[in-house]
Amino acid sequence: MASPQIPTEQWAQVVEKTGGPVVYKKIPVRTPGPDEVLINVKYSGVCHTDLHAMLGDWPIPTKLPLVGGHEGAGIVVARGELVKDVEIGDHAGIKWLNGSCLNCTFCNQADEPLCGKPLLSGYTVDGSFQQYAIAKAAHVAHIPKECDLEAVSPILCAGITVYKGLKESGARPGQFVAIVGAGGGLGSLAIQYAKAMGLHVIAIDGGDEKNELCKQLGATAFVDFQTSKDVVADVKAATPEGLGPHAVLLVAVQEKPFQQATQYVRARGTVVCIGLPANAMVSAPVFDTVIRMITIKGSYVGNRADTTEALEFYRRGLIKVPYKTVGLSKLQDVYKLMSEGNIVGRYVVDTSK
Amino acid sequence: MASPQIPTEQWAQVVEKTGGPVVYKKIPVRTPGPDEVLINVKYSGVCHTDLHAMLGDWPIPTKLPLVGGHEGAGIVVARGELVKDVEIGDHAGIKWLNGSCLNCTFCNQADEPLCGKPLLSGYTVDGSFQQYAIAKAAHVAHIPKECDLEAVSPILCAGITVYKGLKESGARPGQFVAIVGAGGGLGSLAIQYAKAMGLHVIAIDGGDEKNELCKQLGATAFVDFQTSKDVVADVKAATPEGLGPHAVLLVAVQEKPFQQATQYVRARGTVVCIGLPANAMVSAPVFDTVIRMITIKGSYVGNRADTTEALEFYRRGLIKVPYKTVGLSKLQDVYKLMSEGNIVGRYVVDTSK
Amino acid sequence: MASPQIPTEQWAQVVEKTGGPVVYKKIPVRTPGPDEVLINVKYSGVCHTDLHAMLGDWPIPTKLPLVGGHEGAGIVVARGELVKDVEIGDHAGIKWLNGSCLNCTFCNQADEPLCGKPLLSGYTVDGSFQQYAIAKAAHVAHIPKECDLEAVSPILCAGITVYKGLKESGARPGQFVAIVGAGGGLGSLAIQYAKAMGLHVIAIDGGDEKNELCKQLGATAFVDFQTSKDVVADVKAATPEGLGPHAVLLVAVQEKPFQQATQYVRARGTVVCIGLPANAMVSAPVFDTVIRMITIKGSYVGNRADTTEALEFYRRGLIKVPYKTVGLSKLQDVYKLMSEGNIVGRYVVDTSK
Amino acid sequence: MASPQIPTEQWAQVVEKTGGPVVYKKIPVRTPGPDEVLINVKYSGVCHTDLHAMLGDWPIPTKLPLVGGHEGAGIVVARGELVKDVEIGDHAGIKWLNGSCLNCTFCNQADEPLCGKPLLSGYTVDGSFQQYAIAKAAHVAHIPKECDLEAVSPILCAGITVYKGLKESGARPGQFVAIVGAGGGLGSLAIQYAKAMGLHVIAIDGGDEKNELCKQLGATAFVDFQTSKDVVADVKAATPEGLGPHAVLLVAVQEKPFQQATQYVRARGTVVCIGLPANAMVSAPVFDTVIRMITIKGSYVGNRADTTEALEFYRRGLIKVPYKTVGLSKLQDVYKLMSEGNIVGRYVVDTSK
Repeated sequence: MASPQIPTEQWAQVVEKTGGPVVYKKIPVRTPGPDEVLINVKYSGVCHTDLHAMLGDWPIPTKLPLVGGHEGAGIVVARGELVKDVEIGDHAGIKWLNGSCLNCTFCNQADEPLCGKPLLSGYTVDGSFQQYAIAKAAHVAHIPKECDLEAVSPILCAGITVYKGLKESGARPGQFVAIVGAGGGLGSLAIQYAKAMGLHVIAIDGGDEKNELCKQLGATAFVDFQTSKDVVADVKAATPEGLGPHAVLLVAVQEKPFQQATQYVRARGTVVCIGLPANAMVSAPVFDTVIRMITIKGSYVGNRADTTEALEFYRRGLIKVPYKTVGLSKLQDVYKLMSEGNIVGRYVVDTSK
Repeated sequence: MASPQIPTEQWAQVVEKTGGPVVYKKIPVRTPGPDEVLINVKYSGVCHTDLHAMLGDWPIPTKLPLVGGHEGAGIVVARGELVKDVEIGDHAGIKWLNGSCLNCTFCNQADEPLCGKPLLSGYTVDGSFQQYAIAKAAHVAHIPKECDLEAVSPILCAGITVYKGLKESGARPGQFVAIVGAGGGLGSLAIQYAKAMGLHVIAIDGGDEKNELCKQLGATAFVDFQTSKDVVADVKAATPEGLGPHAVLLVAVQEKPFQQATQYVRARGTVVCIGLPANAMVSAPVFDTVIRMITIKGSYVGNRADTTEALEFYRRGLIKVPYKTVGLSKLQDVYKLMSEGNIVGRYVVDTSK
Repeated sequence: MASPQIPTEQWAQVVEKTGGPVVYKKIPVRTPGPDEVLINVKYSGVCHTDLHAMLGDWPIPTKLPLVGGHEGAGIVVARGELVKDVEIGDHAGIKWLNGSCLNCTFCNQADEPLCGKPLLSGYTVDGSFQQYAIAKAAHVAHIPKECDLEAVSPILCAGITVYKGLKESGARPGQFVAIVGAGGGLGSLAIQYAKAMGLHVIAIDGGDEKNELCKQLGATAFVDFQTSKDVVADVKAATPEGLGPHAVLLVAVQEKPFQQATQYVRARGTVVCIGLPANAMVSAPVFDTVIRMITIKGSYVGNRADTTEALEFYRRGLIKVPYKTVGLSKLQDVYKLMSEGNIVGRYVVDTSK
Repeated sequence: MASPQIPTEQWAQVVEKTGGPVVYKKIPVRTPGPDEVLINVKYSGVCHTDLHAMLGDWPIPTKLPLVGGHEGAGIVVARGELVKDVEIGDHAGIKWLNGSCLNCTFCNQADEPLCGKPLLSGYTVDGSFQQYAIAKAAHVAHIPKECDLEAVSPILCAGITVYKGLKESGARPGQFVAIVGAGGGLGSLAIQYAKAMGLHVIAIDGGDEKNELCKQLGATAFVDFQTSKDVVADVKAATPEGLGPHAVLLVAVQEKPFQQATQYVRARGTVVCIGLPANAMVSAPVFDTVIRMITIKGSYVGNRADTTEALEFYRRGLIKVPYKTVGLSKLQDVYKLMSEGNIVGRYVVDTSK
């Protein structure tokens, strides 16, 4: 079952050899398998992971040649014979987890991201930096039609990830969560999700610009790690009775904040690791961890239920994402800026240009 | 309200100056305050913590002079005017947590061990190495009368602690828990509690004697860290599908096992720290912690509900504790053996000798 | 320890015989016991339960003579020798649960409201319809000083109760909760707490005035049970995919809504009973309950942690309570209006008049 | 992919018209779809539901003609192109839930039994009363090869159902669960699962034979509802402090026990409804439900994770099922006995006869 206008060829950005660059060229449009859909990608966010995939500097090898991208928003144009819950014309998103086995120990407990046989968009299968991308029907994000496809695309990875982290933190409405790296891309989304979930946010980052941004997004307090004489004391002072926040969300990409968090988190509190600083360790003194009953945990990407929930918060207008759009043909330029650390906010590529 | 036979003087072991030794001497018997009870201690377990308290080698200072001991089992002989739930003649136990404020954020959520104003038996208040000890009525352990006071005493600290750790692990009946240091004092209790809770145990320790002991106590598998070529691989191999245990209990006093545990624990699994190796750190690679969604947490002593539950498992005959009894007057000899690392099983002191 | 200005006599409203009326008279001021405080009550909310207590039409008998009232807000003026966590001059509240044993199975798991030996303010012990009331120090509500004592008083029973019910519902931020009786006293508080907790509210009540009130307080939808042709269908239609709300809060005092709730609640959803219609039954077809895995549960008053949390939401300005104040001497007039069903909003009495 | 020896025709028991009887005849063997497997059913348990399906006396209509049966154990002989996690030669079970969409709100949270588009074996799709049955690969039960296919078949419905109910009860190891109907088919399995999960069982049923059976299976206490003068008092008396059991499992098919359970369950306890007495209501007084904070919930069949876990308890030898085997050709005789209420234990049919 398919709409008639699907072309046989399309524009894509292809990594032809590890290290890059991406090559903007025409490639064939694939036909979906029995349990797959074909999505006409309109927009796709660009994530640091995409750069890593091109450079091949992560331990796990990518497929080659590779079409990157895992924040793709578009329209379903074809589907396989077994697909019943996705209709032609539906708005759908391609996420990092393109597919999973749906039948292992982890999939059976709704932990699809922990599946031992995952399909990863833009990494082990082709992703969203092309006009027509394949996805497992059971895994596509269902994007409500009132959402703008351009603006929503960064939610598909960044938004879901921080929302999942907040759920994993166990923090309840009315409690305090410290967000380390609050002024960055993940952090600014995290502040908004936390507010929408009834939490108080203590934003931790550096500089007056970030301070202002965090306050404006709704943070209850801001601790500047560049100027604070004692980050641990300042974070605790911003919480009731000075007991420290109930949870900490680590979205920074330095290692140091991972060690401080266990010191200022409240007894019985939870430190959630999300950011992935290269080769970093999370560590804590055993004595303090035991006596104060601290929990340290990692949170990866969301499962399908988290995806639906994260999108619903966005649909209600509670989450705003700053982004800048360029044509898909300019992807290599975006990677250049990214390598130079010159990106503020998120880049989105328009596959029609 | 009091029974008539309470003497005014009693035998006790007193730490008169930091560093010790303990001095066996007569001291006055105290009168309980309005919310306290006086317990005629019959037997008391001896714990490593007691040695630390005498030596003063922990960061927190003790009271001085100090009567140590926090595994005391005896009979209630007097109570204050406000005490309604403890009767004269009840069998009661003195635990590490002699009292807490019962009204702070932590006490209000049944986390009394995290109270900011704890009274610690044998550390900040006098403990069970005397014939008549004071305890806050709301905190005494209620020992069923069919339990032998001599045999039950080590449950009051060691038993409760490992039971609490198993609860904190979140492991459910039918799941696997690895116990590191399974052949030691805490470990052998942990195996028995785990079995009683419907869990499978993978015992990790060194030597054939420990192997035999662990198997006999009900462990499903034993991994010998002294002879194994790859502890991580061997632990995983002992679990269904090789996915690793659902939880790990660290009761060892070396640092190394803290690092290995995060490698063999199952994705979404929990590593519970209980043992307190001096100056040890628990650490894990951020990448692996995030991608596999591992949880690392500390578990301290049990609260009052945990105490009741741990004693009830004991009462049903599911937990056996190997111990050796000597007179209270011989306490310094026990400390000597302890310092030399020459103790197998638990020592109990009889306060009548 | 006490402030000097405590009088020996005070004004109070006393139920001298079951059936009433209340008698406005001078009675002695009591001295607090070792674990008690004396509170100079400034204001007290008036609850339907107070009328029941005077009339004696509930199954459990009250003390006699009785001073009613269990929503008292005032200032601590004296405390017993064991009290350490409440200071003279603190603002404190008298709740329905004046005290509990703090040491039974339920108190030990932070379920103080289920204690088998509760002290109930204005029912089994004298309450807040007097100028100086006694309360167990461990149980008084800690009222932040920036809260107005007059306005906060109704939070002490009504606010805590609905907040507890919302916690018990298990509904998470972003989910839907239907509130039955949303336009009444408890209901209008419940809408505000639900919003502050990140929940969507479907308000169910009758009449345009209530519709307007509920919408204004933040309800996402309103279902008018007086005009709806199919309440069950209308409630489901107001939720995503028509699956029904994740939870239902029953604060109405009729029986019928108790039966409908199990029909429109989502599969795996929870119906929380809070309101107490006389002699009502909650019932559901076994077949539907099983196949749809519905949960029905009762929620009583909050524990001490719930109290602190509910007050904190109020302090942040997220909860408004409409009330009208009269002198304590006019209490019988309030009961008269209450008996006639002529009260809109909550009455508060000022103990100085 | 298929093994060569699959015949084109097979023996089956077919309901050709509602009301029955079943007709033993040859029918074609179907070919599995892309996401399906073909199972050579060796044995199948016979459940009351199968009789209802034939008689058509339940509200939901069955397919026609219909092959009943949903406790089928056999060997995988063919699979569709998308199937990767089931191998030819695997031992596999056909459960009540033959398939679900795997992509709705409920499937996404691992509540497949609540899927709105379920395929029900022997009801809406053909089941296990044939030699070669089709099942969705993602839903077949994975039967360990050391399990006897004949003996294990009743676990596939009855075993999983009671295990799920025990999980839903929230009862923890060391706590008490009352099982109403403990001496019946579901009940006797429930006792064994409860024991394996570290729970204490109070068995409730009638008659000395059932008493003996329950005690032998490990029940801590037996209450005979036929001879007890006060069932509520007797159940409570069998629990610590007389507080009542932490949970109640209702597997009986009468209505009365549903009402008593809310009276003897402990405050904060949970009553789990599993059995489906015709047209029965579960009901409880609102006042008591609220004041004691009782939970009443329904539990349906298990999901895929529950299935794996329930089978694993069986594999370990902790669960024994009494059964009697006859040829598939004799199915109508089994239905006759069932209609007359003359069955003790479970009947299993051998598809080779």
